[in-house]
Amino acid sequence: MSTAAPAPLPPGRADTPLFRKVLIANRGEIALRVARACRELGIPSVAVHSVADRDSAVVRFADESVQIGPAQPSRSYLDASAVLQAADQTGADAVHPGYGFLSEDPDFADACREAGITLIGPRPEVMATLGDKAAARSLMAGAGLPLLPGSLDPLDTEQARRLAEEIGFPVIVKAVAGGGGRGMTVVHDPDRFTDEFRRTQATAQMLFGDGRVYVEKYLDKARHVEIQVLCDGHGNAVHLGERDCTVQRRHQKLIEESPAPKLPDGMAEEMGRTAVAGALAAGYTGAGTFEFLVDPAGGYYFMEVNCRIQVEHPVTEMVTGIDLVQEQIRIAAGQPLRIGQADVRLRGAAIECRINAEDPDRAFAPAPGTISTFEAPGGPFTRIDTHVYAGYTVPPNYDSLLAKLIVWAPDRDQAIARMRRALGELRVEGRGIHTTARFLDGVLSHSAFQTAHHTTSLIDEILQSRTG
Amino acid sequence: MSTAAPAPLPPGRADTPLFRKVLIANRGEIALRVARACRELGIPSVAVHSVADRDSAVVRFADESVQIGPAQPSRSYLDASAVLQAADQTGADAVHPGYGFLSEDPDFADACREAGITLIGPRPEVMATLGDKAAARSLMAGAGLPLLPGSLDPLDTEQARRLAEEIGFPVIVKAVAGGGGRGMTVVHDPDRFTDEFRRTQATAQMLFGDGRVYVEKYLDKARHVEIQVLCDGHGNAVHLGERDCTVQRRHQKLIEESPAPKLPDGMAEEMGRTAVAGALAAGYTGAGTFEFLVDPAGGYYFMEVNCRIQVEHPVTEMVTGIDLVQEQIRIAAGQPLRIGQADVRLRGAAIECRINAEDPDRAFAPAPGTISTFEAPGGPFTRIDTHVYAGYTVPPNYDSLLAKLIVWAPDRDQAIARMRRALGELRVEGRGIHTTARFLDGVLSHSAFQTAHHTTSLIDEILQSRTG
Repeated sequence: MSTAAPAPLPPGRADTPLFRKVLIANRGEIALRVARACRELGIPSVAVHSVADRDSAVVRFADESVQIGPAQPSRSYLDASAVLQAADQTGADAVHPGYGFLSEDPDFADACREAGITLIGPRPEVMATLGDKAAARSLMAGAGLPLLPGSLDPLDTEQARRLAEEIGFPVIVKAVAGGGGRGMTVVHDPDRFTDEFRRTQATAQMLFGDGRVYVEKYLDKARHVEIQVLCDGHGNAVHLGERDCTVQRRHQKLIEESPAPKLPDGMAEEMGRTAVAGALAAGYTGAGTFEFLVDPAGGYYFMEVNCRIQVEHPVTEMVTGIDLVQEQIRIAAGQPLRIGQADVRLRGAAIECRINAEDPDRAFAPAPGTISTFEAPGGPFTRIDTHVYAGYTVPPNYDSLLAKLIVWAPDRDQAIARMRRALGELRVEGRGIHTTARFLDGVLSHSAFQTAHHTTSLIDEILQSRTG
Repeated sequence: MSTAAPAPLPPGRADTPLFRKVLIANRGEIALRVARACRELGIPSVAVHSVADRDSAVVRFADESVQIGPAQPSRSYLDASAVLQAADQTGADAVHPGYGFLSEDPDFADACREAGITLIGPRPEVMATLGDKAAARSLMAGAGLPLLPGSLDPLDTEQARRLAEEIGFPVIVKAVAGGGGRGMTVVHDPDRFTDEFRRTQATAQMLFGDGRVYVEKYLDKARHVEIQVLCDGHGNAVHLGERDCTVQRRHQKLIEESPAPKLPDGMAEEMGRTAVAGALAAGYTGAGTFEFLVDPAGGYYFMEVNCRIQVEHPVTEMVTGIDLVQEQIRIAAGQPLRIGQADVRLRGAAIECRINAEDPDRAFAPAPGTISTFEAPGGPFTRIDTHVYAGYTVPPNYDSLLAKLIVWAPDRDQAIARMRRALGELRVEGRGIHTTARFLDGVLSHSAFQTAHHTTSLIDEILQSRTG
């Protein structure tokens, strides 16, 4: 037996705290996730919350909490000055932005820097470049990452139409400032292109205050695979393998897993190497994600970089043994990475299901309400990340993510069996509450998923077969 | 990056079910643990339960349930004929006995065999030999395992007194049929030896219906370390590393961990090799545990073999990635082990805390009652095994184990920090309910535990320092 086994991280905890205090500028499960990492690192944490979120589990768990505004995100979680004021008031010297909200806002990153507060994430300039999808495509093409045919720059309507005809339909029109599945339109019919293009520009202007869009070849039978990277401020970068996030509904991920099943030999490793090259070219620091589309016919194509922790980060944690949020905090505090690429070993298979407060029988309409019964699955290799509990009222003001259920097993088949067992244990009951748990169990039992022959259109196919 | 990383188990799930149906002859968290393994293996499960346990989570989770008797264990979980009748009635072709109750009863194992039902555990003859501690010592001495000075056979009072003087006080008097911390007496004072010896004989007769006792040297500053083995019915055996169960109160384990910290170089590997040799010598099949005492001065000594799954098996699962209950079932179904010793890799460190319904401020008196609030810890590398939930009434009829909380981390220091974080999240509230959670947090924060300089007397020392 090898007891000198691959402990992925050398011991060495910092004897001096990494930060005096970390303010968590987010809500829901990710806020609790960050607070847990702070506690384990010995750093006091501050939860900020809206009025609507005053009963969230993180408010009780964090060492301090500050109410920063009303339910509306624009007046609380998106209000940079309210967040920075809370940091000032509590003496926090670092801010963890989670995902969404201010997490990829270069202006907020700038404001943190000016206030002398460390933002746990990449530098504002890097965030600005990578947040501009056209600029990111251009940078990554230069670093050797393969791109889908399309434009490297924002286009006007006529340029766009000509390009679309050149690369062939379907194409996708994407907002330069888009993200999270918003601000993108797939166009199959050349005759509808000009209308859809203009409509996407208008939507982008409305959503992001930036109407610039670009055009890319659309793969309608693709898989979504992404690479997790970690980069310190000393020129060191590693990747932690890949995640497959192919199971999506309207560009929102529902089920994620690591490793990605049935990729062509060597593809994941090559994607990892190119992602590290891209991260180094961008001067990236912290935890970041390189998103790719994989064509089942063989190629892979860079999509975008997410400059933050991802919702689906736990599957990477389960297969690598590395706590990504702790690593973010260590890197932001200036520590060099404690691992090299050779220390990263993927073990087994992990799957995450996003349990949303939505009613699959009513077109996934949000179904918030008061939870009367909440029983989390337990047992071997089963993890739940959630801010809810029995007695908690799910506010209608935010996204519908109630909980993330994650399992690990030695291989994918066993992980699927374990996830189905765990989903069967989950109980979320209460007036008005519906969840996606049973729907996801149906996806896990689908033969295309079980044999890993699914593409991003799996959910549409399942839904059509039900109504058809 | 090595993506061809150590997946501990090759894929190959059985296409035909391992058993038609498994009956779970136990209660509490272990019954649910077994039902989860059955579900993941695709085997229907039957929960048997006493009247007092009708609301246990396993009754809802298992595919079927049968009430087999009143609260008293002797008329339910210890009633072999009631258990076998339930198996007959439900068509179960295998019984998983869990731990305690009938799990190490050779007569029950015999009765299963006669009824044509597979008992998931070693053969009755092996169980009988290893359950007789004197016979087990003798067998293991022959297989080359080091023993503490003492008797290989049961003794009469005068023989015992002479032997005790020869090996030197303190000595421990142990029931041949004892187990679970019962039927043993430590004697420090030679003048009290004869009285204590006779008293232990009488206790053993009362508890086990077998008054035979033997004498062994007592190490009062020792560590308890045990080796997990897996043996199939085809002559293959591996060990899965060690567990340290040194934190005990009155011979009841409170905190367990893997690997054992600060053992002399090579000792764990040697214990593992000798345990495998002992298992092969005994003709053992299934999952078993070889318990050893480790003298901080350097030696290790065989104590006994436990012919069943242990309460603390999850720490081994967390560091090896191997599901021990699934392996028990596979072995009982006749499958050969799918791993060799070289495939077993320990990764990181795992700790388990037993959360008991006891009041540490009242000498750990049982504190059952109705749970009004139950909130399980979650997040990274955090596992809970429990049969309780909000609204559940803890019956006063059984042991006080409410839940097991298990964490994993890359190293022991981080695992301790993670466990303390997780304990801080646990909420168990209700009329009459007290738990050991806060007390265990105090143990985890104790410098002797943190530096791994503790011995089996740690809890006594902590309790004395509080009252002193």
